Amino acid sequence: MVNLDFSKSADGLIPAIAQDWQTGEILMQAFINAAAWEKTLATGVATYWSRSRQAFWIKGETSGHVQRIKEILVDCDLDSVIFKVEQVGGAACHDGYKSCYFRRVEAGGLRIVGERVFDPATVYAQAK
Amino acid sequence: MVNLDFSKSADGLIPAIAQDWQTGEILMQAFINAAAWEKTLATGVATYWSRSRQAFWIKGETSGHVQRIKEILVDCDLDSVIFKVEQVGGAACHDGYKSCYFRRVEAGGLRIVGERVFDPATVYAQAK
Repeated sequence: MVNLDFSKSADGLIPAIAQDWQTGEILMQAFINAAAWEKTLATGVATYWSRSRQAFWIKGETSGHVQRIKEILVDCDLDSVIFKVEQVGGAACHDGYKSCYFRRVEAGGLRIVGERVFDPATVYAQAK
Repeated sequence: MVNLDFSKSADGLIPAIAQDWQTGEILMQAFINAAAWEKTLATGVATYWSRSRQAFWIKGETSGHVQRIKEILVDCDLDSVIFKVEQVGGAACHDGYKSCYFRRVEAGGLRIVGERVFDPATVYAQAK
């Protein structure tokens, strides 16, 4: 297994960037620890470490909108990775956008530039 | 100014991802604190916070190979940003590759898949 360097932050986490494997669009960024890294490699599905829940976070586990790993790239220092993924369902963001980075910094503040795939009010209401 | 959320990590840092503004290739990922964020916005040149030096890190400051900001995207939680940049000199990685993510995870380990733009042995020797 490829060993990464989790020693540089106090919490043992490094950033993992999910990028659409076909378009190159950056979908989201979350964190992994050693256990989440192993789980991602073993399952082929992007698995992060949730800082708020302090638990594994298999992206899309409940909705089925998982991220299927197509390729993984690691950086020169072994402390940052790219997951090239197929985003099932088309939207990575809980706000319903394809990418979590749906806002651009402009002179007057933030402007929405992303593409909305679903309405979270509808989807999450149905899921209850 | 757009305020980001630097409160989620003990060190007050959030990831900043540098992406080639034309090709969409992810070049590198580093960290910013509030001061580096302000400096980036004010100067239009990617400025990170070096964890090892505990100081501002203007990428390419000594070599002239800076990253000119073309666009900035922020994520849904305001705790991760994308710098869409023009990488002056063509290489973001100190190892001479266009991108720091020049290795792919394969069954047997890591395989170099990136494009080398310069030979670091030559370049850094000349710089001394």
